[in-house]
Amino acid sequence: CNSEANGSRTNLSSSDSVINLDHGDPIIFEPYWRKMGDKCTVVIPGYQSLSYFANINNLCWFLEPELEKAIKRLHRVVGNAVVEDYHIVVGTGSSQLIQAALYALCPPDGPEPVSVVSAVPYYSSYQDVTEFLRSGLYKWEGDARTFDKEGAYIELVTSPNNPDGTIRERIVKQGEGKVVHDLAYYWPHYTPITSPADYDIMLFTISKCTGHAGSRIGWALVKDEPVAKKMTKFIELNTIGVSKESQLRAAKILGVISDNCLHFGSSSSDNFFEYAEHLMAKRWEELMDVVGRSAIFSLPEYPQEYCLFAGKFTEAHPAFAWMKCNNDKIEDCEKFFRGNKILTRGGKRFVADPKYVRVSMLGKEDEFNLFLERLLAIQETGYVLG
Amino acid sequence: CNSEANGSRTNLSSSDSVINLDHGDPIIFEPYWRKMGDKCTVVIPGYQSLSYFANINNLCWFLEPELEKAIKRLHRVVGNAVVEDYHIVVGTGSSQLIQAALYALCPPDGPEPVSVVSAVPYYSSYQDVTEFLRSGLYKWEGDARTFDKEGAYIELVTSPNNPDGTIRERIVKQGEGKVVHDLAYYWPHYTPITSPADYDIMLFTISKCTGHAGSRIGWALVKDEPVAKKMTKFIELNTIGVSKESQLRAAKILGVISDNCLHFGSSSSDNFFEYAEHLMAKRWEELMDVVGRSAIFSLPEYPQEYCLFAGKFTEAHPAFAWMKCNNDKIEDCEKFFRGNKILTRGGKRFVADPKYVRVSMLGKEDEFNLFLERLLAIQETGYVLG
Repeated sequence: CNSEANGSRTNLSSSDSVINLDHGDPIIFEPYWRKMGDKCTVVIPGYQSLSYFANINNLCWFLEPELEKAIKRLHRVVGNAVVEDYHIVVGTGSSQLIQAALYALCPPDGPEPVSVVSAVPYYSSYQDVTEFLRSGLYKWEGDARTFDKEGAYIELVTSPNNPDGTIRERIVKQGEGKVVHDLAYYWPHYTPITSPADYDIMLFTISKCTGHAGSRIGWALVKDEPVAKKMTKFIELNTIGVSKESQLRAAKILGVISDNCLHFGSSSSDNFFEYAEHLMAKRWEELMDVVGRSAIFSLPEYPQEYCLFAGKFTEAHPAFAWMKCNNDKIEDCEKFFRGNKILTRGGKRFVADPKYVRVSMLGKEDEFNLFLERLLAIQETGYVLG
Repeated sequence: CNSEANGSRTNLSSSDSVINLDHGDPIIFEPYWRKMGDKCTVVIPGYQSLSYFANINNLCWFLEPELEKAIKRLHRVVGNAVVEDYHIVVGTGSSQLIQAALYALCPPDGPEPVSVVSAVPYYSSYQDVTEFLRSGLYKWEGDARTFDKEGAYIELVTSPNNPDGTIRERIVKQGEGKVVHDLAYYWPHYTPITSPADYDIMLFTISKCTGHAGSRIGWALVKDEPVAKKMTKFIELNTIGVSKESQLRAAKILGVISDNCLHFGSSSSDNFFEYAEHLMAKRWEELMDVVGRSAIFSLPEYPQEYCLFAGKFTEAHPAFAWMKCNNDKIEDCEKFFRGNKILTRGGKRFVADPKYVRVSMLGKEDEFNLFLERLLAIQETGYVLG
């Protein structure tokens, strides 16, 4: 294993290995997909999907009809979003759709760039993605809580939030504001589904729903037709559509999930969301157990809510643990963990206190277990950085 | 068939149907892929490619190793580009790679946007893609031939050129210029391969090479490591990588093409480039035959060159016909054709004389034949727009 040089994979046979919990690479659900066997296999012959077009009669002309159907069906089955009277725009992951939404919500010839804000702590990529091309259409203005400029703005609302798993609503209320709801984590394995969301623009991604991050498939549910058209135009200019292979595979995978949901309770290991929720709950219990043995670290608490999908009270098991280090001698928790060969994403990246770190809960089983072991050792030795 | 409403597909049973030759949708090679049968079929089980990462030890961390190998091998087999000492960056089509190159070649904090130019007539998307986000990094400055500003610039060189199929070299010579070579059409079925290209940044796409436009796979061969890193960063910010399914399929398809090239001459219908060149040559002969029957329209002429791949003198059979209308009463050839239910892309879109139109040579067989029929009828009746 030559991974220690770049620290992106873990040699689990060695106690000296680096554990990478920085990215939210969703490997956790792999055993489920192995178990599904041929049911999720796609077979694509060489002559298929040659054309740029998937459905010339659709507003989003590169959206595969099967994927559109599978997305609508899944939202109906899960009950996490309203799909009636919404346009679906498919994207190369939801990252592309965030950029498409910014493009669509800004006038092409405005005298000033539109302000883009999000409430701290916010997803570390929002700022990068808004700023990297120095667009004259929009401008990153940081924390939504302290934003008080006049004029047009766009608020990005992530709910459940990345990094801290909290349920959020828009914050800025004045003026001509537009809101983009990033609902990547609004699925029953991460959080109770309390009502079907019906915001103007809602973004989802298969990466966090099923764990197929390599497919780069996201989708937007968009109420307003001109906005959906402009988002489609963005994707046309940016990448001339979205991989047909990924769309066909996503359609199949989402279809299997919907099928398996209809047998809820009969076999908990076949219902993806039930399987995934058990897995997330187990990891969270284990982490809370370890963290609870000392006062060095703490975790957020999440209220129990009635989940319409599960038909019972459940609590959140977010994709990331937003850990706080309570030891006064540790100012920078990311640095402290790095010294212990645990890579996390520090609070500063989310414009939060560096005493916080974001820890992926979606990694491989053995990597997660090694993390728990090392955390326990840190706590037991009372190890403090010099 | 409800296609006449949006004009993107053709009802071939009706002589009143709209023929769409505006886009370069590469359907022409479909029979070859059907003939290849299972050899090009990919089978992707549900548990595959969950991760964002494909190869953490590679500069381009989302590039599938099989695709990297297949790309290098194909260029060696065809001889159209040098791959030794080049970095490969995969993109969601070459559109994304053009944007990645612009991002990589511009300083992040320059006082002025870098000028972007291309020689007229140029690909209609370059201007749109450079301007749509009103970037402060770069600015569209139009025709390279008349460009005389001081300071940094980027010249986009498409060779063979879209729309007119000519072989091109950089034009602007002064100052601190960078060049991006778009070699989408530098394949033996479109043009003689006269030498392996070895420019600093070379862009290719599977869409025009094999006809798999729906896969959205392009690649850049990049000499300079920091440039390749910044292009990779662009794709990370824009779409967090490129569809793994499309990459795996592209790897397989390019592999089959390379395999079949090794049997050159033994069965002309199995060698993709030989097959495709015959097809292109046939269409060009037919078009030239029809056009030659009157003086209303004319086509560019291409010199015979020695093609290193074919091992003989060949001539270009471009993906688009750049047709000129010589009738004084027809000012706008696109409009004239539209009146005859033939959709083309007019010269104005390429900053050229509206007497020109770009006609796709890559459409379906029956659509192309209908185009010839209608062209013949126009010429025979001496039809002129009132």
